[in-house]
Amino acid sequence: MDSSLTHQPATSPTMHGYSTDKDAYLRRLKRIEGQVRGIARMVDEDKYCIDILTQVAAVNSAMHAVSVGLLENHLQHCVVDAAKAATTNGSPEAIDAKVKEATEAISRLLR
Amino acid sequence: MDSSLTHQPATSPTMHGYSTDKDAYLRRLKRIEGQVRGIARMVDEDKYCIDILTQVAAVNSAMHAVSVGLLENHLQHCVVDAAKAATTNGSPEAIDAKVKEATEAISRLLR
Amino acid sequence: MDSSLTHQPATSPTMHGYSTDKDAYLRRLKRIEGQVRGIARMVDEDKYCIDILTQVAAVNSAMHAVSVGLLENHLQHCVVDAAKAATTNGSPEAIDAKVKEATEAISRLLR
Amino acid sequence: MDSSLTHQPATSPTMHGYSTDKDAYLRRLKRIEGQVRGIARMVDEDKYCIDILTQVAAVNSAMHAVSVGLLENHLQHCVVDAAKAATTNGSPEAIDAKVKEATEAISRLLR
Repeated sequence: MDSSLTHQPATSPTMHGYSTDKDAYLRRLKRIEGQVRGIARMVDEDKYCIDILTQVAAVNSAMHAVSVGLLENHLQHCVVDAAKAATTNGSPEAIDAKVKEATEAISRLLR
Repeated sequence: MDSSLTHQPATSPTMHGYSTDKDAYLRRLKRIEGQVRGIARMVDEDKYCIDILTQVAAVNSAMHAVSVGLLENHLQHCVVDAAKAATTNGSPEAIDAKVKEATEAISRLLR
Repeated sequence: MDSSLTHQPATSPTMHGYSTDKDAYLRRLKRIEGQVRGIARMVDEDKYCIDILTQVAAVNSAMHAVSVGLLENHLQHCVVDAAKAATTNGSPEAIDAKVKEATEAISRLLR
Repeated sequence: MDSSLTHQPATSPTMHGYSTDKDAYLRRLKRIEGQVRGIARMVDEDKYCIDILTQVAAVNSAMHAVSVGLLENHLQHCVVDAAKAATTNGSPEAIDAKVKEATEAISRLLR
């Protein structure tokens, strides 16, 4: 990112863990979108149920990979940044809140 | 599908368990496709990781509902039909194969 | 169930799909029980969290295998028997109830 | 732990995130162990497959709760400590390794 830019791009204040991999995530999500559309087409063309379920499992697996990637990026940046900030300004509550939030997200993904 | 056929209902040669609920499945898959596109938009707009993961969990949950529905329809029709056929023509191997296939599909969904 | 039978072994009137593999299931469950006890021991001995989580994942995976096995046996016997019975006595409601019940069990395992 | 001991007990240098909740974890794991034994008893007594699967789902759910708890404790302590250490001694690699390790554990639990 070019720091010489005067007009801050809109996304700058909200850089997140996944931002550097943004293009890769967008490509993967595009592919998942296509897979879901493919499943709809299979239903529309009366394909065999088990073959449809195999594609459903493939989408689940692709979503799993996306969510693990997002979690890793989140821990690497947001949680670790909160921990570092707490070290310098001494506010452990901020990390606890971040960790609780991340754990709740993991819990929702696990069910 | 050949519309020149006079009496054939469109779905007839390949009727499956889910065929009667086809429209409902197509609507649900359309909605899931939109949800995946929404996640891509969130990534593109640098939304907060945890909010993205919440949407990922919502897609997982919607896919879960679709897969349970497809499985129920499959068991109701394909597996049960195989069982009935076996009763009249006495070929238990056909059911075993159907059950094995369904169980493998469930196993793939469970992981 | 015929209560007039004097020597009926206890398990006979309630044969289920898994009955022929009973010993294998008991061995696997015994092993899982030991794995859970091993996790408790690791907690007690302050082992590293990640190593404990690896064992938790191993238990999940073993339980997954047990549940897929039980489901396969259940479909093979209970569901298929209901389907056959319906063919001879013509009561399709019984199969629908069986399929619904199996699907609900699968749905609980999937979350 | 006996604080009168001059020589630090072996486990002391390896305090982990879950250490303060140790008794609660041990009680929960004891209960899960009993649930697994209960499932074995159900198999042994030829209980109905679906009722057994309901208990399997209950064990899965209890293991889920344990693993989310352990993960939260791990993030709160081990990962956050690594982040703080990195702030003072400037070794970002240590955090990356911790985050990678935690993410891999999550990934194993998610499947």
